Amino acid sequence: MTIGVFDSGVGGLTVLRALRRELPGRDFIYLGDTARLPYGTKSAASVLRYAEQAADALVAHGLSCLVIACNTASAVALEALRRRHAPLPVVGVIGPGAQAAVAASASGRIAVIATEGTVRSGAYEAAIRRLRPQAEVAAAACPLFVALAEEGWTEGEVVDLAIRRYLDPVLSVAAPPDVLLLGCTHFPVLAAAIGRVAGPRITIVDSAATTAAVVRSELRDVVGASQGCGSMRLLATDDAARFARVGAGFLGEAITAGAVEVVDLG
Amino acid sequence: MTIGVFDSGVGGLTVLRALRRELPGRDFIYLGDTARLPYGTKSAASVLRYAEQAADALVAHGLSCLVIACNTASAVALEALRRRHAPLPVVGVIGPGAQAAVAASASGRIAVIATEGTVRSGAYEAAIRRLRPQAEVAAAACPLFVALAEEGWTEGEVVDLAIRRYLDPVLSVAAPPDVLLLGCTHFPVLAAAIGRVAGPRITIVDSAATTAAVVRSELRDVVGASQGCGSMRLLATDDAARFARVGAGFLGEAITAGAVEVVDLG
Repeated sequence: MTIGVFDSGVGGLTVLRALRRELPGRDFIYLGDTARLPYGTKSAASVLRYAEQAADALVAHGLSCLVIACNTASAVALEALRRRHAPLPVVGVIGPGAQAAVAASASGRIAVIATEGTVRSGAYEAAIRRLRPQAEVAAAACPLFVALAEEGWTEGEVVDLAIRRYLDPVLSVAAPPDVLLLGCTHFPVLAAAIGRVAGPRITIVDSAATTAAVVRSELRDVVGASQGCGSMRLLATDDAARFARVGAGFLGEAITAGAVEVVDLG
Repeated sequence: MTIGVFDSGVGGLTVLRALRRELPGRDFIYLGDTARLPYGTKSAASVLRYAEQAADALVAHGLSCLVIACNTASAVALEALRRRHAPLPVVGVIGPGAQAAVAASASGRIAVIATEGTVRSGAYEAAIRRLRPQAEVAAAACPLFVALAEEGWTEGEVVDLAIRRYLDPVLSVAAPPDVLLLGCTHFPVLAAAIGRVAGPRITIVDSAATTAAVVRSELRDVVGASQGCGSMRLLATDDAARFARVGAGFLGEAITAGAVEVVDLG
């Protein structure tokens, strides 16, 4: 049975990449809701509605697990999607991301950078404090990073300055964090530049690898879940050519426009 | 009767501002499709569908004129909306923008900066060449400008460097343009920074003032069009608070969140 993965666009391909590395024999179907991206600047009500439509479309294919590879949608829609599709295992990226951050932090001071929607939800603070109640969590919304990542501007002066402008208030404090959590699946493509600006004392973590490990453990008890041939289907709600061009950098391998199926969720 | 204005989000408020200045006694209703913004990176088919839904919602209020205050939607949907709502006058921003650029250019060399969707459509080149067949038109997509404008980063190093990166290929040529046309309604809030980077030999023009003049002339023959009390209704498809906060910079006056009505087009 297939593992379904969805995101507002191409950012979730960083999670799909980790999933395919962790579970190479499984079949995957990925849906990017590119017709309505970004989710990160939209209201919780809109994101919930979009996430429900995306999940319904994937579940119709018959899934062994559904992965919400979008932080904003995980923050807003995880519980609703678990109820809607029970007993299907539904995995979001917030819990695994919090787990990775807590594991990497010696001081318990963790900074989260994410979209406006994710920061507003407070979901990362809550998830981190569930694992480590004394943690000090600072959060900063960095909406421009999504546009930079989509534009393929992952290095250079514009990127460095934008990173500095967003991170200075979070890092230039008396007791700085020792972990910076990338709380948006678009941000891993900027990780090298973010790491350079943040400096060597700060460990950069993201949700991708820990999410893949959680999915593997969820699937252990699902009958038939281990069957597959390592296939990958890619669906988008808009413009296959743009998805293929921009998505390649996130997936870490070439995508041909012909391999992307356009579907309508409206 | 009311003048309807729509855009993917808050950018079209730069056009509404010019319209209210040009036609101060008229009533306006503005719709920003913030649940699905931006249009500029989406396919023509999606933008056409969204524009039809937005236009239908506004026309239901009884209009004397419909203004497409979005370059991407004007490029893709103007003719379709004219047919759909005939004999209602429907005014886009591409024709008026082209008119402003041609009027301002001595050399006939014009650069257009816009979204990916507008550039891909070739609509500005076609509109400019209809007015001045010998014109030389260069076009550059600057998708990051939308995010910068939405983020309120209208001045500073990040902005200057991003402008330079986009404009250098267009301006640093043997025979540079003498007019730079802002072919996206988000861009006027960046006009000061763009003008500084482009230098004093290049005239910056946008569509807002000429669009308002075209609307005034269209309304001359419409019965009852001159009635009104200078009112303004603001509708958005998502998050009134964000629309109010971000929109104020584009409209040039404060907007209270309570003044924004959220509507559903889906």
